[in-house]
Amino acid sequence: MNHGRREANLIFGSPVRKVLIMTMTLTPIGLIHSPYATKEEAPIQGTFSPEGIGQVVVFLEYMEGLKDIETFSHIILSYQFHQAGEVKLVRPTFLDDEKHGVFASRHPCRPNGLGLTIVKLLNRSKNILEVSGIDVLDGTPLIDIKPYIPRFDCFPEANEGWVALKKERPKPVGRE
Amino acid sequence: MNHGRREANLIFGSPVRKVLIMTMTLTPIGLIHSPYATKEEAPIQGTFSPEGIGQVVVFLEYMEGLKDIETFSHIILSYQFHQAGEVKLVRPTFLDDEKHGVFASRHPCRPNGLGLTIVKLLNRSKNILEVSGIDVLDGTPLIDIKPYIPRFDCFPEANEGWVALKKERPKPVGRE
Repeated sequence: MNHGRREANLIFGSPVRKVLIMTMTLTPIGLIHSPYATKEEAPIQGTFSPEGIGQVVVFLEYMEGLKDIETFSHIILSYQFHQAGEVKLVRPTFLDDEKHGVFASRHPCRPNGLGLTIVKLLNRSKNILEVSGIDVLDGTPLIDIKPYIPRFDCFPEANEGWVALKKERPKPVGRE
Repeated sequence: MNHGRREANLIFGSPVRKVLIMTMTLTPIGLIHSPYATKEEAPIQGTFSPEGIGQVVVFLEYMEGLKDIETFSHIILSYQFHQAGEVKLVRPTFLDDEKHGVFASRHPCRPNGLGLTIVKLLNRSKNILEVSGIDVLDGTPLIDIKPYIPRFDCFPEANEGWVALKKERPKPVGRE
């Protein structure tokens, strides 16, 4: 899975030193179907549209890896923001007109272009998972599925940082 | 970010049809330092070793994207399982000797080799984030950082599927 090499600048202690980094190549394991054909239609987060029903279609080559997935009520989907525009490290977001760092936001235009969403698993039929709370575009390439496990993933004590008190709103035009 | 094309088999309705899929190339945005030099030392999940302190070192090229990250108490790290062995779609896991599908488990040997962990953000100093609850190997390539937002990510009502009642234990030998 490692293919290329690139140099990057690292500060860890001093001085700045160069490190060699390896790129990696990912191959989608399926496609996600959703009711959202355009970016404008897709909700900012699945939490804002829990009624959105999607189908996670896993390619047959990977179907065996779904064994026991139906024992979970929620799953984590990693996917490619395949329609995302230009990456900007700092930008206004869907929820705020102030600029925030892209790593302090869930904005789709981000380095490596990976999205993450937690959905409710309603039903499995062979290689197709029916889910609710989906927030991705129809036809989104699926990269990984992991079980959501409250013991590992639920931190109710976490604060909401700059997102606190930001309410759902229509996506501002031109914000991707 | 799209590079190659491959064919995959899709069932969605019938008959089986072939679809063209695009591969994507990722470049690490930093490195994660942890106390764990070997797979045996690393905890099965960060929840099991909340005292494990790590440093998330973001390459200087991406530092600007950290703006406002310090307003969050918890962050989500996507990373590469860079030492993972052979991918098996069904296998015994660290927590259970029964075989489960890789997508119903968090096992490192998985298609696309991406890991996900939620850590507590203790401190930021320029491009370095000090975190607790880290569970990755020292030197792990970092792919993405997202803010953890309870409104989007916390589902206390989720069940734990086959993982329910499975307690922490030493990693069985030879299980990667």
